[in-house]
Amino acid sequence: VTTPARIGTASDANTHVIAIDIGGTKMAVAVVRGDGHIVVQQRIATDAARGPEQALTRLTELVRAVRAEANVAIDGCGIGSAGPLDPRAGVILSPTNLPDWDRVPLVEIVRRALMAPVGTVVRAGGTQRLGVDVVLDNDANAACLGEHRFGAGRGVNDLLYMTVSTGIGGGAIVDGRLLSGANGNAVEIGHISVAHDGWPCACGSRGCVEAFASGLSVARRARANPSPRLRALADAADAAGHGDAQITAEHVVAAVREGDPQTVALWDETMRVLGAGLASAINAFNPKRVVIGGGFAHGAGELMIGPVRTLALARAMQPLAAVCEVVPAALGADIGVLGAAAIALAHLERE
Amino acid sequence: VTTPARIGTASDANTHVIAIDIGGTKMAVAVVRGDGHIVVQQRIATDAARGPEQALTRLTELVRAVRAEANVAIDGCGIGSAGPLDPRAGVILSPTNLPDWDRVPLVEIVRRALMAPVGTVVRAGGTQRLGVDVVLDNDANAACLGEHRFGAGRGVNDLLYMTVSTGIGGGAIVDGRLLSGANGNAVEIGHISVAHDGWPCACGSRGCVEAFASGLSVARRARANPSPRLRALADAADAAGHGDAQITAEHVVAAVREGDPQTVALWDETMRVLGAGLASAINAFNPKRVVIGGGFAHGAGELMIGPVRTLALARAMQPLAAVCEVVPAALGADIGVLGAAAIALAHLERE
Repeated sequence: VTTPARIGTASDANTHVIAIDIGGTKMAVAVVRGDGHIVVQQRIATDAARGPEQALTRLTELVRAVRAEANVAIDGCGIGSAGPLDPRAGVILSPTNLPDWDRVPLVEIVRRALMAPVGTVVRAGGTQRLGVDVVLDNDANAACLGEHRFGAGRGVNDLLYMTVSTGIGGGAIVDGRLLSGANGNAVEIGHISVAHDGWPCACGSRGCVEAFASGLSVARRARANPSPRLRALADAADAAGHGDAQITAEHVVAAVREGDPQTVALWDETMRVLGAGLASAINAFNPKRVVIGGGFAHGAGELMIGPVRTLALARAMQPLAAVCEVVPAALGADIGVLGAAAIALAHLERE
Repeated sequence: VTTPARIGTASDANTHVIAIDIGGTKMAVAVVRGDGHIVVQQRIATDAARGPEQALTRLTELVRAVRAEANVAIDGCGIGSAGPLDPRAGVILSPTNLPDWDRVPLVEIVRRALMAPVGTVVRAGGTQRLGVDVVLDNDANAACLGEHRFGAGRGVNDLLYMTVSTGIGGGAIVDGRLLSGANGNAVEIGHISVAHDGWPCACGSRGCVEAFASGLSVARRARANPSPRLRALADAADAAGHGDAQITAEHVVAAVREGDPQTVALWDETMRVLGAGLASAINAFNPKRVVIGGGFAHGAGELMIGPVRTLALARAMQPLAAVCEVVPAALGADIGVLGAAAIALAHLERE
């Protein structure tokens, strides 16, 4: 039994999709309406260290529970996951933050979970839904589609999305459609090099933006030579029971907000690198809008968006900078499931 | 009278378009068949220093002459020109190598020239053609479309084209269609920065690939500190009457072929910058194939393609490098008119 062809758009209140967001720390499952309303959402810890099997068992149980709770006919299913992955095969390769998740056939696993009969889910016409299409993409592409459909990129057909989080990634909408590339890996914006003979990157190249300006990289750089004030902020957070005394990107942001000169200098250097990388990306994609999301960017807010906007648009070529605006993401913590929903909805519209 | 809607593809032997290539040195006009056969081609000097009016008068005369000589029904017209330009308005802005060509409404001028009756051009059905659609794009996008339709990029739906010539530019095919961007300026690959605090570029940024590795930049860098052998090569060319004693990119290539150590060192540095810039572009677009064209690249041949291929694929992320090949352009000196023809043919297929 396949989904009957739909007339018009999937962005309506009669369409419902299952949205699954898989990260190194937590997994979320939701039922999302075509207009972006989240009917049900539940989160569980990934507990990645215990390996994929127990996590996938808990995930499929959660999918079935959320689906039953929503109690609506389901038209599709989208999964956003940390990469690298093979979106066409529906397989997660070996993400850094999901150890031992090696060639996990996630789409097949979720498809089977959805095919098992769920008594409460009945079509208006009375026919029971046995299966729906399940589509997978990486979390940055998912977030790009989510912001494009529901958030800060709505109505923009030439959109660049950059996530600045633990790592740095991105996605692009070209002529209204996601740019996938030859094997689904386009817009690795964190691996644009701004210093061809500079700092090494885990990818094997040098001078990559991610290896300097991601949350992880900023924390690492700050730890190498912390100011007394930054050191004190980390220790205070530890004393309050919020973690160990290891300096994090959040502590860096706090020190910059206080105006700690040494940390401000590190921040300014970080913004110059981010701005230069984004300028190259603007020169590559000629977007009408750049949306900046990700946990690190969200936490820093205008402290990051402001200088990155100014520096990137000053460096980008004038005719391209003239038509481009740089704005923060709009969807906050829901971006995971809204992005996954957008993957499913885009797939329904292509059918 | 408008062109009747065509069924199927424009890539057939019954379709003919007028192709116009406008450069700082020369202009070419051709009638090209849908399968890439050049029916007629003529070239004239641009004589850009005398301003746009005389050049445009000679151009429209040439268009009418070539059209009359070909004596076939014309289905469309494409123009490739040095940029910057506004492709949607059909206007040339102010290209560096076309001084005083400021806001030239080229599409309108050519459209009018084509609307004037030409007695010899009669449709099979006997109705005289009074007008056809005229479309304009920049020369790098034109070359990208040309190599995609007729040359080294045939059949590749995710294609990146890089031209290494006086300047450095590019174009990209995404899902089989040209990536235009918000205002037709996408894939400014020469202005990807590989040294965010490095050498200045005329665009206002720093570390741009073009400001280091274009033909003009390589010649300038070589002239700043030429080896005795490079100096001798330039003087010898001058004695033979091929130009003045100014060192050019061609002399650099000749000295590298001879193994002149100082010039080889300059070349290796140039290839590292080109390779790093192309790696960032591969990480951005995830192309299945990169086609490298342009006069400087063509003249250097494998001396450039070889190291750029090796360095770019070594620096690009592994999953993207694994599916990408780097090859030289195939269309040589005809790329100008074949690119312009491809613009017209792509437009016909979109109609």
